[in-house]
Amino acid sequence: MEIRIGLIGAGWMGKAHTNAFVNALIAFGQEYGKPVFEIVTDISEEAAKKACNNWGFSRWTIDWKEVVEDPHVDVVDITTPNAFHYEVAKAALENGKHVYCEKPLTLSYQQSKELADLARQKGVINYVGYNNVMNPANYYIKKLIDSGKLGNVMRFDGTYDQDMLLDPALPISWRHINKYSGSGALGDLGSHLISVSQFLMGNIESVNALSKTFIKQRPSSAGSHDLGEVENDDMVSVLANYENGAVGTLSSSRIAAGRKNFLSYEIQGTEGSVYYSLERLNEVNVYFTSDNSADRGYRTVFLGPEHKGYTAFNPAPGIAIGFNDIKILEVHELMAAVVKGTSYICDFAFGASIDLTVSAILESAADQKWVDVKNKSIV
Amino acid sequence: MEIRIGLIGAGWMGKAHTNAFVNALIAFGQEYGKPVFEIVTDISEEAAKKACNNWGFSRWTIDWKEVVEDPHVDVVDITTPNAFHYEVAKAALENGKHVYCEKPLTLSYQQSKELADLARQKGVINYVGYNNVMNPANYYIKKLIDSGKLGNVMRFDGTYDQDMLLDPALPISWRHINKYSGSGALGDLGSHLISVSQFLMGNIESVNALSKTFIKQRPSSAGSHDLGEVENDDMVSVLANYENGAVGTLSSSRIAAGRKNFLSYEIQGTEGSVYYSLERLNEVNVYFTSDNSADRGYRTVFLGPEHKGYTAFNPAPGIAIGFNDIKILEVHELMAAVVKGTSYICDFAFGASIDLTVSAILESAADQKWVDVKNKSIV
Amino acid sequence: MEIRIGLIGAGWMGKAHTNAFVNALIAFGQEYGKPVFEIVTDISEEAAKKACNNWGFSRWTIDWKEVVEDPHVDVVDITTPNAFHYEVAKAALENGKHVYCEKPLTLSYQQSKELADLARQKGVINYVGYNNVMNPANYYIKKLIDSGKLGNVMRFDGTYDQDMLLDPALPISWRHINKYSGSGALGDLGSHLISVSQFLMGNIESVNALSKTFIKQRPSSAGSHDLGEVENDDMVSVLANYENGAVGTLSSSRIAAGRKNFLSYEIQGTEGSVYYSLERLNEVNVYFTSDNSADRGYRTVFLGPEHKGYTAFNPAPGIAIGFNDIKILEVHELMAAVVKGTSYICDFAFGASIDLTVSAILESAADQKWVDVKNKSIV
Amino acid sequence: MEIRIGLIGAGWMGKAHTNAFVNALIAFGQEYGKPVFEIVTDISEEAAKKACNNWGFSRWTIDWKEVVEDPHVDVVDITTPNAFHYEVAKAALENGKHVYCEKPLTLSYQQSKELADLARQKGVINYVGYNNVMNPANYYIKKLIDSGKLGNVMRFDGTYDQDMLLDPALPISWRHINKYSGSGALGDLGSHLISVSQFLMGNIESVNALSKTFIKQRPSSAGSHDLGEVENDDMVSVLANYENGAVGTLSSSRIAAGRKNFLSYEIQGTEGSVYYSLERLNEVNVYFTSDNSADRGYRTVFLGPEHKGYTAFNPAPGIAIGFNDIKILEVHELMAAVVKGTSYICDFAFGASIDLTVSAILESAADQKWVDVKNKSIV
Repeated sequence: MEIRIGLIGAGWMGKAHTNAFVNALIAFGQEYGKPVFEIVTDISEEAAKKACNNWGFSRWTIDWKEVVEDPHVDVVDITTPNAFHYEVAKAALENGKHVYCEKPLTLSYQQSKELADLARQKGVINYVGYNNVMNPANYYIKKLIDSGKLGNVMRFDGTYDQDMLLDPALPISWRHINKYSGSGALGDLGSHLISVSQFLMGNIESVNALSKTFIKQRPSSAGSHDLGEVENDDMVSVLANYENGAVGTLSSSRIAAGRKNFLSYEIQGTEGSVYYSLERLNEVNVYFTSDNSADRGYRTVFLGPEHKGYTAFNPAPGIAIGFNDIKILEVHELMAAVVKGTSYICDFAFGASIDLTVSAILESAADQKWVDVKNKSIV
Repeated sequence: MEIRIGLIGAGWMGKAHTNAFVNALIAFGQEYGKPVFEIVTDISEEAAKKACNNWGFSRWTIDWKEVVEDPHVDVVDITTPNAFHYEVAKAALENGKHVYCEKPLTLSYQQSKELADLARQKGVINYVGYNNVMNPANYYIKKLIDSGKLGNVMRFDGTYDQDMLLDPALPISWRHINKYSGSGALGDLGSHLISVSQFLMGNIESVNALSKTFIKQRPSSAGSHDLGEVENDDMVSVLANYENGAVGTLSSSRIAAGRKNFLSYEIQGTEGSVYYSLERLNEVNVYFTSDNSADRGYRTVFLGPEHKGYTAFNPAPGIAIGFNDIKILEVHELMAAVVKGTSYICDFAFGASIDLTVSAILESAADQKWVDVKNKSIV
Repeated sequence: MEIRIGLIGAGWMGKAHTNAFVNALIAFGQEYGKPVFEIVTDISEEAAKKACNNWGFSRWTIDWKEVVEDPHVDVVDITTPNAFHYEVAKAALENGKHVYCEKPLTLSYQQSKELADLARQKGVINYVGYNNVMNPANYYIKKLIDSGKLGNVMRFDGTYDQDMLLDPALPISWRHINKYSGSGALGDLGSHLISVSQFLMGNIESVNALSKTFIKQRPSSAGSHDLGEVENDDMVSVLANYENGAVGTLSSSRIAAGRKNFLSYEIQGTEGSVYYSLERLNEVNVYFTSDNSADRGYRTVFLGPEHKGYTAFNPAPGIAIGFNDIKILEVHELMAAVVKGTSYICDFAFGASIDLTVSAILESAADQKWVDVKNKSIV
Repeated sequence: MEIRIGLIGAGWMGKAHTNAFVNALIAFGQEYGKPVFEIVTDISEEAAKKACNNWGFSRWTIDWKEVVEDPHVDVVDITTPNAFHYEVAKAALENGKHVYCEKPLTLSYQQSKELADLARQKGVINYVGYNNVMNPANYYIKKLIDSGKLGNVMRFDGTYDQDMLLDPALPISWRHINKYSGSGALGDLGSHLISVSQFLMGNIESVNALSKTFIKQRPSSAGSHDLGEVENDDMVSVLANYENGAVGTLSSSRIAAGRKNFLSYEIQGTEGSVYYSLERLNEVNVYFTSDNSADRGYRTVFLGPEHKGYTAFNPAPGIAIGFNDIKILEVHELMAAVVKGTSYICDFAFGASIDLTVSAILESAADQKWVDVKNKSIV
């Protein structure tokens, strides 16, 4: 079965998606569909043409509406800037297309909820690209929790820190302007942490947030003396109550010196604990209270064939998989849903639930008080 | 010069203090005073006698008031249960004694403030045993901050986790009853984290706390079916604003599976970062943005002769010091203050400032709102 | 420019090569050639057919000679069992084909030398797949050495350990029979370590080896009571003198409990050191004596855009690359050589030099004495 | 019972021993004897006097023979430069004293053997200070091996690296002159590694060594242009066969950039493995093949109350002990032997067996061949 793709957005992420489709085919075989690169669009004609030639698409256009209406397209793949996700995804859904949308789903919970409802109504596949969820490490940790091996989970503490925007000489970009980004570190990085947290722990019930912008102005362009206002958080920290009774903290910084891709968390249960950092993608640290006490300590478990997804890439344990491999697993899950109707985690309702948590955090930080997340309303 | 010690409390901590006095003499020499073990007291006659015989004291008594009034005592050393610190320290100060009191200073900010004021008025040495402050690692980190090598410090995230009370079969003890302990993980462990944090970062301006008791009842004694109520926090998490403009989180758990002595924190600045865990006492991890970018990464710095206090124990770098060595540095700082009048960090005002933060956290957790710490009032 | 590939061997490694060609095109673009999957062969008709259908080849055959003689083939890609490399590579060279051969080149230095000479005479690209050499981490370390940042290199200590054959119930396979494998852990794993070592340090001058077979017999097939003899080393350790004056040890085990892909080494120089483990592929640990002594320690450097090859996969530092990505870099180097005539590391002479070291180690282990490697003779 | 000590050598090590006696009393109580600091001697009158005053000795002398003959001395404690151990220890034994001698026992196996025989004949306690043996971590590992939890032990790979002599501007010292030191890194550091290895694995059967001096000349004194010859090894690497059938490598360097106190080793068995580094004194890493395979990984076990010796210092796990604490355990073992006649590991025969291995390594490095250790002859 062919899966005909209409790609909207021909930047780095568009390339990453295309690459992932190609490799999902190699890794899993035609049983899960054969991706056909039907049409690609970008507001830049040059980018659209180049993507068409280099990435194996048959056609290109600069009008994204052509793509969502194209009868030869099965899956609309959205990798535009975040601010356009809503409009494009809505149009695609209205045309009855399956939609694969890069994260975040939209810039507001209301829009995301609308899309989730529309998708359900249309009965199409609706997938939002919270790629960390498909990390075999997180899947393994999910299994540890669900199997009861950690006992009752009591605490989640996590952070997602990078230092890519630490240099104050870096100019203002879309990331700093709320109409394009929705929020700062919270939406860009924190939403990934929330996706993992909600995947593992279930929904968050209430939040209390502290948010701060340390670099308040940045050059309007590289080297310029003209300064623009940074509108959103460089750093955010959140106290959280989970629906399952656990508590914890979630933090994020985009100006964290020394941290490169530090999506890191610890989960403590009554019978065990786990900690994990994306900077050491292939290692899960797990502790069981049932181990003989003299010999007890955190185990460093390397990903291997017994962890879901791993064997798509390597036949033996301890051979490092990379971050791009995780995107391949994501695309595979999407393709399996399209071809076989299998269930998947990151549907639009899941995406909307993250946007709901994000909006509660923004409200809490602004009002300096606890905010109830009311995640249940979206189910 | 002799420093004549009257020890109040002959348990494990009393032994640790005595041991530290002996070793401080060995490590630093008589220049900083010669400890003389004058008198020891305990409510248990047997414990008092045994301590007298085994630890080198000249006399013992079961009446602590004798000790604080004894004209042959220079320093009253308090290692009683926490709930008695206030009364004993007050009496000792009123008798004009130098006072060395194990942490926490008292169970309330008001009492601690009263002692700090009294000590200042009496002009005596007043030292509270927040031992982590004297850790050469923390001293080194303090120096990194004060020298500006980390730039402007923006964030402190720390936790102090242990799993010693994870087993729900462990019976109720003084730690679970507020009239003896003041609070749970917060006062027992969290206060250590706060001491380090305030030493390094300065005072906390406001806090917002989430506190939780997971094991709500425990056997009244080992194996008993009679259950007692646990009155205080197993776990606490705090959002904090620092007076210096930094933000962060401070957490603590006494039921953290897999964590043994995990006083761990990360400090992020505009030009560098540091992270540290007491479980790896001898390693400080530090990152400098000024390092050549291709070769840049967290450095694992082993404690060595260039870090304050280390050479008291070892002549060459990388030879592990232990936690008891840090207590020796604490006692040395006390003795130097007595003999040479040198300044010291952990005076009663410092202790009171920690109790103030603790009380603000308790209030915030109870009222579920931000609480202003108003540390400045104690100076 | 098209690069028409004739693949010989349709197993896991054949798939990995094909996958790497596809991804090299995606990552680097058509500037470095467009792989065309012309023909595939395998002794199993079923495997050949399946590979043809699933991996995008145009034709298949069960006669490998057709492939090496096919005028539509530019590059003969050899992924057969090791014992067939020599015959196939020789035939391909004699037909004037570029040859890309999986490691090891052959089972003896003499054969490898013959192929290296023939390839030079024919003037074709001759590439042997010692993939670890293309690891951006090893490239970075090579640059550290060559730039003099580590001073004069004095010592190399490395091991390549796995535990995949620890279970004595695993049956005899080609790995245990010398006519198929040439040697045990030494040729299978140790040769990778030697490849990295010689890439970084230059040739080894003399060796002294200790080799041991711990599991001397294995079932002839799974569950069988019939036992076969294991002919070669489970474990080998080697003392080495390098031509550059350095000394060191190289070891390998295929029965190393707990080690999964532990190609690990430390290089010590007069002005710095480095250690690295493939189990933490994305981290290079480097120490510079020139760092300020109080702040000096091993730096954990995450791979990033400043390290050669990394940007083919990720735009920002600290995003984990995986082992398969390294194979892509290898194939890219091959394609660049074919299309642009750029130089490359892993030519047949390099492969032969590794086989020479391996043969010297085998001789030393057998005769229990130092053996001169005489690498120079192959240049 | 009093243990009256005659200390010979009043330098850093003399102080460390005295300190350890004081603390052994504090930690273990008078049940194991009460150390009495009877007399101290040093060739420097000033050092002898100062030690007498500061360390609590009753008398001093500059004639060591007075000490070994003194009827008020029970234990002769030797902390002189290595070259004097033999003569002093022999005289002490001949006077029927218990002898506690810092490592190495002597500079040759023959002398050590003579002392071991003499001590046995005299029936006195004879203890050589290979302190690493008493490390609770090594004791725990010994127990893992002896209990069979690691299965049959097949391999030991270890190194003891420091960089204290990396700077070529450091002047010649006794460490570089064989008549004072016997050998270089081998005797100074390597002997500690051998002590641990032989404690854990049993005796070494045969060795093959490579030894190298990289810094061949050093200033005769700091800053001098006058150069002296370095007579011994900066670095040594050894292949070893153990009597128990295991194989391995032992290495040592005193010019290892970045390594501070890196006594590090890995032991691989048929059912588990362990690795350990003295730079992380409180952590033992252990792997069991019997763990459920999906959850299997090296465990990081922190030292705690279940590991022998630990409770002398701390009541709860994960509280770091330091290197000096290990010396206290050593002195305790000595005192227990004197007072209670308990057995001990590091007797002179054990010390001699290490010197035998060292001499075999020196012979092998000189002759470039395998040398049989014949350890059995000393039993």
